[in-house]
This record gives sequence, C-alpha cells and structure tokens, in this order.
Amino acid sequence: MSSVEERLAHEGFTIPTVATPLASYTPALRTGNYVYVSGQLPFVNGELPRHGKVGTDLTAEEAADLAQISALNAIAAVRSVIDDLDKVVRVVKVVGFVASADHFTAQPLVINGASNLLVLAFGEGGVHARSAVGVVSLPLDAPVEVEMIVEVVD
Amino acid sequence: MSSVEERLAHEGFTIPTVATPLASYTPALRTGNYVYVSGQLPFVNGELPRHGKVGTDLTAEEAADLAQISALNAIAAVRSVIDDLDKVVRVVKVVGFVASADHFTAQPLVINGASNLLVLAFGEGGVHARSAVGVVSLPLDAPVEVEMIVEVVD
Amino acid sequence: MSSVEERLAHEGFTIPTVATPLASYTPALRTGNYVYVSGQLPFVNGELPRHGKVGTDLTAEEAADLAQISALNAIAAVRSVIDDLDKVVRVVKVVGFVASADHFTAQPLVINGASNLLVLAFGEGGVHARSAVGVVSLPLDAPVEVEMIVEVVD
Repeated sequence: MSSVEERLAHEGFTIPTVATPLASYTPALRTGNYVYVSGQLPFVNGELPRHGKVGTDLTAEEAADLAQISALNAIAAVRSVIDDLDKVVRVVKVVGFVASADHFTAQPLVINGASNLLVLAFGEGGVHARSAVGVVSLPLDAPVEVEMIVEVVD
Repeated sequence: MSSVEERLAHEGFTIPTVATPLASYTPALRTGNYVYVSGQLPFVNGELPRHGKVGTDLTAEEAADLAQISALNAIAAVRSVIDDLDKVVRVVKVVGFVASADHFTAQPLVINGASNLLVLAFGEGGVHARSAVGVVSLPLDAPVEVEMIVEVVD
Repeated sequence: MSSVEERLAHEGFTIPTVATPLASYTPALRTGNYVYVSGQLPFVNGELPRHGKVGTDLTAEEAADLAQISALNAIAAVRSVIDDLDKVVRVVKVVGFVASADHFTAQPLVINGASNLLVLAFGEGGVHARSAVGVVSLPLDAPVEVEMIVEVVD
C-alpha cells in the first residue's frame, strides 16, 4: 500500500476501482511526467448518490462531499496508469465544474471538498492551481465534475 | 498526404482549412512536444450549420455531428502548426463544452462525436482523457466547442 | 522592473499584488518550464467592481474591462512564483469563463479584454491558444474568470 493510500485510509477513505468511461476515452493518460485525468463524476459503486443543481437540489456542503468523492475517483484514475501513487510529485491543476442554480455562486466552497482531499492524500504536493466554475448541467445530471493534472516521477 | 488524412479520407472526411480566430489569439500553438488547440466551433466553410442549445434547439445526435466537425477543425488547427499530422503521437486531452438546455445531461453522447473522430484519425493514439460539460451559451450561439492538447514528435 | 512591467506601466497598467485564494489551493504553480495559473476573478484591491451576468447585468464591453483586470491578476500570480516576468517565453493557453445571460453569445469579445492585455504585456509571446465559454455563474457572482498556462525559462 502506498503512503498516499495509508494516509487516506487513516482518515477513513478508500480509493475505489476506477469508473468506466461513459464513452470512447480513457479515465487517465500519462504523457511524459504528467497524468491527465478525465472529468470525474462522484460515482459510488457505479451510482451517483445525488443528482441536480447545487443551490436548489442540494446545498453547497452536500456538493462538497460529492466533490470529495470525485477527487477520490480522480486518484483512482491516476493509480490505474501509474500503479504506485507515491510516484505523484504534485497535483498541478484542478478544474471543478459545479452544476449550479442560476443564483448559486459558492463554487469554491464546493470544490474545496476536492482540494482538501487532495492535500490530505498528497500533503504539500497536493496543493494545486485551480479553477471552479458554475455550469448549467453535467453528464447524468451529476452535481459536480472534477478533472486534474498530476506530475509523477518513476 | 499523411496517413491520418488518408484514414479520414477513406471514411469520407476532409480536413478543412483552419478557421480564422474570432479574436487576438491563435488557432493552435506548439510548446515543446505539445500542441494546444483553441476551442473549435463547428464551422463549415466559415458558417455554423446550426445554432442554439442542445436539448431544445437540436438533439444530442445532431450535436454529436457538430462535435465531429469541431474535431475536424481541431485537427486542421494542429496541421497548421506541425504540417505533417503523422507527427501526432497521441491526443492527450479533450474538453467538450456543450451549450445545454437546463435539463440536458447527455453531454458525453454529444462529445463522442469528437472522440470517435479522433480515434478514427489517430487510431490507438487518438484515445484521450476528456471532460464534457454543459455550458449556458457559446460564442456565436454555437451548440458545441471542442478544445484539445496533442503530443507530437519530429 | 521587468520589461513586461515597463510596457504595462507605459500604458497605465500596474500589476497588483496577488489575490488570496478563496480556498485550499495556490494562485499559481510552476512545474518544469510551465506556470499554471488558477482561475482569476477581476478583483481590484480585494473587491469585485461588478457582479452578475454579462448580457443582463453588464455589457460585453464592460465585461471586457473586467477580463483585462483578470489578466492583470493572472500576470501577478505568475510573478508570485517566478519573480522576473521577463522569464515568460510565451502564454500557452487561456480559458475565459464568462457568466452569461441565457442569450449572450459574445464571449470572444469579452475575453479579448484579457487576450489583448497579454499581447500588450508579452508581445509576440503573448499570443496564445484560447477557449471562451459562457457559464451560468461564477464564484462570488463575478462576471468573468480567466485561467492560463505560461511557458518560462530561467
């Protein structure tokens, strides 16, 4: 078990198996020393626990829990291409898409659920550049989608 | 003619000339071994064949055809900076923005139009990481916009 | 003072101090020869000068001024990690998110405010690949958010 997985396990988190893509692409791809992770929905055992738009169908706090799950799925996607998560040097970039009600503007609070999980998993190396935006809708009516780029070494 | 263009021609696709940017930027830019492609609208001979939001003004299937055109335009943009498309090692990342009606959640189906075209063009190297999201509106009322990063070798 | 700052000063622009992140991430991060900049809101002295959606609450031209401010903040974020802005070789990629009224489709006009500022600051090296999209809402009800990647040398 990598030290990343140990730190997560200590806080009660298990990295899931990687979610099957909804289409003709791959969950993650390595090029040089970077792994690009596809947009991750908050699947739990293949199901979305919640649907809809943040601000009407669920609260920012509830959505932050989903962003955390998306981040776990993103880590799973990284593991699927590099095997050992301790090869991750840093999380470079995160983009968090939040399916937002017209008036909802607390996207940073939602995506903190992902950012905090990444810092928990990777420590200093988990601190990343980030954008958080409010989109009108997401695949399968998911409330959040999180993509990222990580740097790795062999 | 590159083998990429031959494969596309065999399926009836022609790579267009590159669309003129709508503003002070460039359709594609090479840095190191990567080409970053600007968001591509589904222009055909300088015109958008359809406008509006997917889910009301057009169907997911119709929008998938537009995403395919955007991907062709993205390949054209790559060719404009590297000349020989056989230099493309892999498509690294695609982001597909779908102008979506409030209730529309089949963005993956739409962006498959782009993803499948890229696999057709580049084979194994065309399999990429991807995000697909639903935005409220796009430039010129286009239904889709597709950006990508490809890795090249000389 | 870098020549970048001199060019901007000549046109009346001052690079601000870097805005504090709204959450557990960093305004910019260097990996190899690239700096990834987090999504920048148009803060002026810690305040957003305008709020709301472009097309209803403010015009495209007003929003272009905000995009220009976001670009200045993005340059500030780059400076916070590389010190000397003359190390910037080129701006690689810009994504401009525009909080858009349902019918607003002039996102390129808005994001030109950022693109033109980058060309002013970096000259030929400021010409970048770009996507501009219309999102339903942004953090703190900001009308625009701009992220970018720049290439640097030591």
